[in-house]
Amino acid sequence: MDSQFTPRINGARLWQSLMDLGAIGATPKGGVCRIALTEEDRKGRDLVVQWCRDAGLEVRTDEIGNVFARRAGSDPAAPAVATGSHIDTQPSGGKFDGNFGVLAGLEVMRTLNDLGIVTRAPLEVAFWTNEEGTRFTPVMMGSGVFAGVFDAGFARAQQDRDGIRVGDALAAIGYRGEQPAGEVPGGMYAAYFEAHIEQGPVLEAAGLPIGVVSGALGQQWYDVTVTGQDAHAGPTPLALRHDALLASARMIEAVNRIARDEAPHGRGTVGFVEIKPNSRNVIPGQVDFSVDFRNLAQDGLDRMDAAMRASFAGIADAAGVTVQVRQVVKFEPCLFAAACVDSVRRAAAALGLPHMDVVSGAGHDAVYVAQRAPTGMIFVPCKDGISHNELEDALPEHIEAGANVLLQAMLEHAR
Amino acid sequence: MDSQFTPRINGARLWQSLMDLGAIGATPKGGVCRIALTEEDRKGRDLVVQWCRDAGLEVRTDEIGNVFARRAGSDPAAPAVATGSHIDTQPSGGKFDGNFGVLAGLEVMRTLNDLGIVTRAPLEVAFWTNEEGTRFTPVMMGSGVFAGVFDAGFARAQQDRDGIRVGDALAAIGYRGEQPAGEVPGGMYAAYFEAHIEQGPVLEAAGLPIGVVSGALGQQWYDVTVTGQDAHAGPTPLALRHDALLASARMIEAVNRIARDEAPHGRGTVGFVEIKPNSRNVIPGQVDFSVDFRNLAQDGLDRMDAAMRASFAGIADAAGVTVQVRQVVKFEPCLFAAACVDSVRRAAAALGLPHMDVVSGAGHDAVYVAQRAPTGMIFVPCKDGISHNELEDALPEHIEAGANVLLQAMLEHAR
Repeated sequence: MDSQFTPRINGARLWQSLMDLGAIGATPKGGVCRIALTEEDRKGRDLVVQWCRDAGLEVRTDEIGNVFARRAGSDPAAPAVATGSHIDTQPSGGKFDGNFGVLAGLEVMRTLNDLGIVTRAPLEVAFWTNEEGTRFTPVMMGSGVFAGVFDAGFARAQQDRDGIRVGDALAAIGYRGEQPAGEVPGGMYAAYFEAHIEQGPVLEAAGLPIGVVSGALGQQWYDVTVTGQDAHAGPTPLALRHDALLASARMIEAVNRIARDEAPHGRGTVGFVEIKPNSRNVIPGQVDFSVDFRNLAQDGLDRMDAAMRASFAGIADAAGVTVQVRQVVKFEPCLFAAACVDSVRRAAAALGLPHMDVVSGAGHDAVYVAQRAPTGMIFVPCKDGISHNELEDALPEHIEAGANVLLQAMLEHAR
Repeated sequence: MDSQFTPRINGARLWQSLMDLGAIGATPKGGVCRIALTEEDRKGRDLVVQWCRDAGLEVRTDEIGNVFARRAGSDPAAPAVATGSHIDTQPSGGKFDGNFGVLAGLEVMRTLNDLGIVTRAPLEVAFWTNEEGTRFTPVMMGSGVFAGVFDAGFARAQQDRDGIRVGDALAAIGYRGEQPAGEVPGGMYAAYFEAHIEQGPVLEAAGLPIGVVSGALGQQWYDVTVTGQDAHAGPTPLALRHDALLASARMIEAVNRIARDEAPHGRGTVGFVEIKPNSRNVIPGQVDFSVDFRNLAQDGLDRMDAAMRASFAGIADAAGVTVQVRQVVKFEPCLFAAACVDSVRRAAAALGLPHMDVVSGAGHDAVYVAQRAPTGMIFVPCKDGISHNELEDALPEHIEAGANVLLQAMLEHAR
């Protein structure tokens, strides 16, 4: 193939597939509830697998339920160039999160079929089990097992709130495969690309259809407990209080300040707060809250960690309370392979699509796959930056643009 | 009687009665759960009524279940001098809150029996229905009906979460009386005194056994709703957030500052917070919280209200969120009658008990009774200022001292 050749996917077909898959588990508000390893997930998987077979792809399922659909290349010895994402959703999720990446990959295959193009390397589209982690933890389970971050046996033993194990749930929906996780016919992927809605407001605010994702923010999550003394709000003068909520309010402000000090990539969020006894005329004696710090480099996360601990200790001392900080989750920062990031940027340029370099603030299957294969990601805008919400929405032209960039980037590596 | 006569109550007997009453609804941690108009409340009421009858008192019950036990005086035309409090408790309450005031009043009667003293005016000890308000609202229901703040029919129609009405619950435990609320044989009380644990840390911090209560703080309670936009914590840069919790944290700090500006009587508390969606990696889109402002004068409460509204509006604007403030409860500040406050102070002095003037930060039945009769209160310390808690505790010598002050103050008005 000519390196200047820029075939285009069929945007209307891709959009229709997104709508058809979104009908499975559709919610009244226009969202989707298709939680991992439920009957709805089975129906969604079966539909996508059928579409893959209809496109002539060879489908495999591994021991953690990841599904791979391969389009043969002309060189049987060449490692595949892959793409993929997930089709499980949040309980109040949307039609695009994950689903877009999988169906964009399928659309790449369908387009190549239409054009009669046979690449040198095989092409593969994957959907990874339980990316969302709402029913079973850990999140990004399938890609994590693929990457060797989690053992397959550990993942299959995880239970939901009803005590049902991942392994049994996989068997029940017919997706407990035989292929050992992480084994790829012909060897590990030459490259992996994942297209995804941005799930944030940056591209929309910039008015650009394509984000070239250079990496993913590392994450450090904490559980914080502030302990004071609950007391009657009336009889207790301010000077004699040990108000766990007042101290926590100051800590929440500090989390924001610490993140601002790490611009532009620092993020600091308190998303969960539980106060006890939570009665309007009782000074709170205990507050539990979460801290979610993100940054693009580990030294930045280290600075945030140290600043938080120092700040919290000073606030607690001044307020007459105690504070405990426990780190509960850590994801390393991830810089994607330059060869893949450059391919995405070149693809957008070749297609005449305005683009900017962005980072992923959230975790994605691609972040785990990046531990095994050169990886890149393509972001497209979503309406108001909203995701994990039934209001999640995206424009057909952005969906089409993202899939065209995916096609072009995969072709660059597979030709 | 000689005005210098200072008889003493029987501290051991009073303490034993507190322990005996505390055994009804006793909790494993040493507290009491005896919620208004439950079977436990019936058992507690029956025990106290039996004790009153054993002491020769004449017992009446009014239409809202308030119970009055009268010791006859020598002048049948004299209005009674009364005392009282409540015996219902919080779900995780203590043995002293309310119970102390009722049993101190009973101990006054027992002591006068022991000494063969007949006062000129009749003496009366009351226990008021549903002071705590945990099962049925409004709080201080019985004394509120007595004072005419609530209509008896309104109060009897109030329902608990199971739809049971106060009137039916009163009948079920045998305490729906016939006497119209607010009617007092011989006319309204000449004076009313209520002994109570402080439920705060002031006396303990000062090392004093007696608080002479000059009045009760007025209260204004608010419901506040802060509305932003929930969004993924990772992909949303700080500058593009509408973080309802960050704004709320700043408002919680402002509530504290506004109260500090009203020293020494200003109190500001946020005791209730609910955030949505309350997920650790989602920026909160909505926060509901309570504000409880207290002050000894209405102009102080007015300043706090205005300062809060101005401050919250500025914080909301700066954070890109909106805020709604709704006042939901108001109690006027209350200054007790000088004649009663002075009696309490004189009684403490006559008994050689170190004392200080204090204000009540919380509501008490006495605050409603004060709308009908000259009223005073006597505070004694409680351990660590803790109340509404199974850990609530008090020293026998403080309990005894408070009851002695009550006896002396009542005698001053009844002789």
